[in-house]
Amino acid sequence: MESNKMAAAVMDRPLSIEIRQVDIPEPKWDEALVRVHCIGICGSDVHYYEHGRIGRYVVEKPIILGHELAGTVVKVGRGVGNVQVGDRVAVEPGVTCGRCEYCKSGRYNLCPDVVFMATPPVDGAWAEYVAIRSDFLFKLPDGMSFEEGALLEPLSVGFHAMRRGKIQPDHTVLVTGLGPIGLLALEAAKLFGVTELYGSDVVAFRRELAMELGATGVIDPTQGSIAEQLGDAEGFKGFDVLIETSGNARAIADSIRLVKRGGTIVLVGLPVAESIPVDVAQLVDSELDVYGLFRYANTYPAAIQALSRGNQDIRRVITHKFPLRSIKEAVETARTQKETSIKIMIYPDEKHV
Amino acid sequence: MESNKMAAAVMDRPLSIEIRQVDIPEPKWDEALVRVHCIGICGSDVHYYEHGRIGRYVVEKPIILGHELAGTVVKVGRGVGNVQVGDRVAVEPGVTCGRCEYCKSGRYNLCPDVVFMATPPVDGAWAEYVAIRSDFLFKLPDGMSFEEGALLEPLSVGFHAMRRGKIQPDHTVLVTGLGPIGLLALEAAKLFGVTELYGSDVVAFRRELAMELGATGVIDPTQGSIAEQLGDAEGFKGFDVLIETSGNARAIADSIRLVKRGGTIVLVGLPVAESIPVDVAQLVDSELDVYGLFRYANTYPAAIQALSRGNQDIRRVITHKFPLRSIKEAVETARTQKETSIKIMIYPDEKHV
Amino acid sequence: MESNKMAAAVMDRPLSIEIRQVDIPEPKWDEALVRVHCIGICGSDVHYYEHGRIGRYVVEKPIILGHELAGTVVKVGRGVGNVQVGDRVAVEPGVTCGRCEYCKSGRYNLCPDVVFMATPPVDGAWAEYVAIRSDFLFKLPDGMSFEEGALLEPLSVGFHAMRRGKIQPDHTVLVTGLGPIGLLALEAAKLFGVTELYGSDVVAFRRELAMELGATGVIDPTQGSIAEQLGDAEGFKGFDVLIETSGNARAIADSIRLVKRGGTIVLVGLPVAESIPVDVAQLVDSELDVYGLFRYANTYPAAIQALSRGNQDIRRVITHKFPLRSIKEAVETARTQKETSIKIMIYPDEKHV
Amino acid sequence: MESNKMAAAVMDRPLSIEIRQVDIPEPKWDEALVRVHCIGICGSDVHYYEHGRIGRYVVEKPIILGHELAGTVVKVGRGVGNVQVGDRVAVEPGVTCGRCEYCKSGRYNLCPDVVFMATPPVDGAWAEYVAIRSDFLFKLPDGMSFEEGALLEPLSVGFHAMRRGKIQPDHTVLVTGLGPIGLLALEAAKLFGVTELYGSDVVAFRRELAMELGATGVIDPTQGSIAEQLGDAEGFKGFDVLIETSGNARAIADSIRLVKRGGTIVLVGLPVAESIPVDVAQLVDSELDVYGLFRYANTYPAAIQALSRGNQDIRRVITHKFPLRSIKEAVETARTQKETSIKIMIYPDEKHV
Repeated sequence: MESNKMAAAVMDRPLSIEIRQVDIPEPKWDEALVRVHCIGICGSDVHYYEHGRIGRYVVEKPIILGHELAGTVVKVGRGVGNVQVGDRVAVEPGVTCGRCEYCKSGRYNLCPDVVFMATPPVDGAWAEYVAIRSDFLFKLPDGMSFEEGALLEPLSVGFHAMRRGKIQPDHTVLVTGLGPIGLLALEAAKLFGVTELYGSDVVAFRRELAMELGATGVIDPTQGSIAEQLGDAEGFKGFDVLIETSGNARAIADSIRLVKRGGTIVLVGLPVAESIPVDVAQLVDSELDVYGLFRYANTYPAAIQALSRGNQDIRRVITHKFPLRSIKEAVETARTQKETSIKIMIYPDEKHV
Repeated sequence: MESNKMAAAVMDRPLSIEIRQVDIPEPKWDEALVRVHCIGICGSDVHYYEHGRIGRYVVEKPIILGHELAGTVVKVGRGVGNVQVGDRVAVEPGVTCGRCEYCKSGRYNLCPDVVFMATPPVDGAWAEYVAIRSDFLFKLPDGMSFEEGALLEPLSVGFHAMRRGKIQPDHTVLVTGLGPIGLLALEAAKLFGVTELYGSDVVAFRRELAMELGATGVIDPTQGSIAEQLGDAEGFKGFDVLIETSGNARAIADSIRLVKRGGTIVLVGLPVAESIPVDVAQLVDSELDVYGLFRYANTYPAAIQALSRGNQDIRRVITHKFPLRSIKEAVETARTQKETSIKIMIYPDEKHV
Repeated sequence: MESNKMAAAVMDRPLSIEIRQVDIPEPKWDEALVRVHCIGICGSDVHYYEHGRIGRYVVEKPIILGHELAGTVVKVGRGVGNVQVGDRVAVEPGVTCGRCEYCKSGRYNLCPDVVFMATPPVDGAWAEYVAIRSDFLFKLPDGMSFEEGALLEPLSVGFHAMRRGKIQPDHTVLVTGLGPIGLLALEAAKLFGVTELYGSDVVAFRRELAMELGATGVIDPTQGSIAEQLGDAEGFKGFDVLIETSGNARAIADSIRLVKRGGTIVLVGLPVAESIPVDVAQLVDSELDVYGLFRYANTYPAAIQALSRGNQDIRRVITHKFPLRSIKEAVETARTQKETSIKIMIYPDEKHV
Repeated sequence: MESNKMAAAVMDRPLSIEIRQVDIPEPKWDEALVRVHCIGICGSDVHYYEHGRIGRYVVEKPIILGHELAGTVVKVGRGVGNVQVGDRVAVEPGVTCGRCEYCKSGRYNLCPDVVFMATPPVDGAWAEYVAIRSDFLFKLPDGMSFEEGALLEPLSVGFHAMRRGKIQPDHTVLVTGLGPIGLLALEAAKLFGVTELYGSDVVAFRRELAMELGATGVIDPTQGSIAEQLGDAEGFKGFDVLIETSGNARAIADSIRLVKRGGTIVLVGLPVAESIPVDVAQLVDSELDVYGLFRYANTYPAAIQALSRGNQDIRRVITHKFPLRSIKEAVETARTQKETSIKIMIYPDEKHV
């Protein structure tokens, strides 16, 4: 930090993003300053870039996007005890109040006062540095790369889905939608010991990647019923748990027919449709459990622990790497090449690309 | 049992029902014969009477309806140990296999091989006697009436809803639909200690009865939003748990807006619509839990215990009593007077009416 | 607050306590200043008064005891939004960090950095005023007295015990030890809908009070086995849940024989013995659940809600009231008259006594 | 089955066992006859062989021991639908009533009327054939060996321990006692995704085997405190979950100090001591969960599923194989060579040894 300026990708309005020099943030007494090693592009970043809003959240002034990151602590406030300068850390990007009923009861992801990176008007971290309250920093074990640290954010969604769905190792599981969230939900299921694990997506590349990541089988929902494709249509009783990550209306509606009696559906993908026709009678008659899911809570230490001695390499979901200065090209790649890109990683220091 | 014949209400086809003399059933080694004291009319009975079918269940030959009953044991098979002749008992009307994965894991309500009274082609108990496997008989404590025993069946649905919804005494609860199931769900909520308990129904008589049963307040959904009617529209954050018993498409769709973030919906009422438009995005964003519900399991001993020393009188839901010989009038009352009748009770021995 | 001094009961060393004028605390930006209406004497207060320590917590400098209180907000820091001047509030006396793994996962009672009133060296509130972080203040509904507000603290222990024990309304429950915690655990069980509810204590006065509070029956453990005293020794299969509040070694050891197979024991009372001989073989063979309990979490809003519309009067446990200036007499009463006193309440303003 | 006689190992009295010709059992209408492929020797078998009793269960007449088996269905009763002749099956050795409160609520392991193989006076299956109710037979997938099928029985105890302990993949787990149950509990923990997994035993051979099976580390409890041996005594905060399988009094007593605040202990090993001194104060103060465990329920299909596509080979716990005719040598090996034998497998057909 020779000067007090840093490079950051500033988005002014939809489709307009460029690198500017902005002030390096100064950590408060309970914050740490992190030099960003790598940071992913999330679907929500692309959506803000393209549309300037997601639902009620509107980009009304220039914003720095990005919230999936890992880096190195370079400065700490005087009240910080859990990390020190030099620590390699993953950054959980939502700072919660700690005092509301949700925070106090362990569901801090529902905190109404959360300050979440890259959700307007809060800046994110497509930049060289970011400051954050230190209790949202988690040290990376020696064997864990910065990339894995950055992927803890989308993996956390999968991890939370496993908890919401009360996943057990004997469950048969289907993940619908095999984008980054779906593929990392597959990884999370494997971390929970699931051995019979299917994926479904219309994009061949994604299905292939799911197989590489260890899916038992994959399904193309455009090619007939999933039950038939599982090769044993007659005996097919449905999945124990279905994790829906596509947000696709048809996938959501179909989910009810794909789980067994007494089974579970976890809805992760946020649909754009205002309402989706659902066969509620079957949901009732089959006594299903259906769980919505919003972000995650208490997943970082757990995911680090679960990953740390395992032999799974979640980095396979990274399909592209760009230096921060190429942010325009990176986000355009994410926007326009959905069939061949999964997770795109940005590096402020281009020698790490 | 001077002869081996008994009176029973036999339905041949829709709207055709009459009393006939049929054989008194002979209990098998693990069954008991129960002389019916009283037996309720359920909405499903009325539906079979009116339409001859419910979904895939079709009345194809003459059937005896009725499955909400209590009575006295008059004969036992030689393998019966839990009850003896003279015992006053409530009858749980579904006999499960005990051997499938659902039975073995405590969810016997989902047993695919259940033999359930008054579900075609299985006969029910609008009759003088009924034989049933004795482990589905539960002794009534001294202070508990036969009527309460018969009401344990619909109360069981409410009890199961409380368990599915993980009800705690501090929850604020809304029950939508105040027919017999809804009103007894209100009673169940009170048994679970709930103190802030609302009901919603379009029928004034039902709302009044809900208030008599101890509801904190009631709502007429035709008179504007529920939030507004709760008198504190601005501060209204939603219910902790909503129990939907009406099966009404709009009530189901609205439920998602009426529970708080992280709240719970239990869907009890079976809708007739093939699909219902649901705001899935809000379900996801609010991280709701939505539970379907099919019948009940392990509720009879629990409900007897919970009722036995309490001061609640669930018999208030009984609005009409008829002798068995007036079954036609009774079921027609249920069919045509939905705004003034809740639970109609049938008595084979008319001196008990 | 005409001056900046207030009366407080300061304990210098064991058995030495007196009223002194001390500074009124100044609330920080996120704190409120509360004028104490009434505050209970807890067993721990008496223990510090008598012995100057509880385990590793030692009174090394003058301390103000007391942590069961309700009062009125008289001043708020500028960052306080949940309460305002004039609000009647109950005070949850432990301020937690909000940032450790326990706080974030909903078990903030295990926070290692908690600052808990009247646990050395932290001052409590046997005083005219106390300042506390405002998220630990909870408004009392109009119909709820200050005394009930103060009793929320020991009631919270009972409430937490119900949650730890996964209490359902059909459970048969035994509470061993009928001091303030045991009696309020009885009240909590009633709030959870429990109808078959027994108490056990060696002191007749306490047993009588338990009966007045609605216990189904009470047992004197010095008069033969509890099973025999329940009048149906042969059929006695054990309680579903046993809540142990006495800390007595024999009560703890006996608990394993008093719950049914698959039953639950919640251990609330902290024994003084370093180790207690336990029949572990029976604990294993009966597949029991045994839960330790430390304080409580997320109980205040829940207990307020559960109490607010109910008809239970938890104030019956208050046996004595003293003005603050008589603190010596009050605490000596608590210390020496254990057989006739349950909860003793202190009032800084003697006109409220 | 050319004749109606088969070889079986009959134990007349302690230390006296020999092969005799006995009648081949005839399966009832809901039973299947299984030709035993292999069957393990359990610690309980050895205990009956040595002492003629375990607690209240006494060998009063000649008995066939053995209850850990897999084999091939050779005959079925006419009411059997789930298996057919030729199926390779694992046998769950306890037949439950299906009708008591425990069976109906999913805890059939607590059924008071269970008929459990090799628990006097019920015969087990150290024999060529055994008949059992067919719902306790589970088909082995093609890739699963009979040995794995037989090991499902002791693995089930571990699987049940994982469920009782609510194991998650991020938990740090210690298994105390590394006999067959402890080692298979280690395997079960791996199936649940646990990555930080320690074992403790006084026998070096067992510790070595634990390491081969994938333990993160092992501890010899005779060599100083476990915390010290974990190499990081200062930072050691305790395990999330401890699974105690040794039944050793000291291991049980120590367990309370080895789990973290809010942690969990699952007690599997049945101690011989009538009572064990336990630091109950710490159990309370640390708010621990302690779970007894008795056998298992609903584990066979789950364990088959979890094993079926995994890459774990639970057969490593088999240290010896004997033909049935050498039963005396086999059981004496189990009895006298505890430091070098783990699981001993018996084969009625010696060509399979």
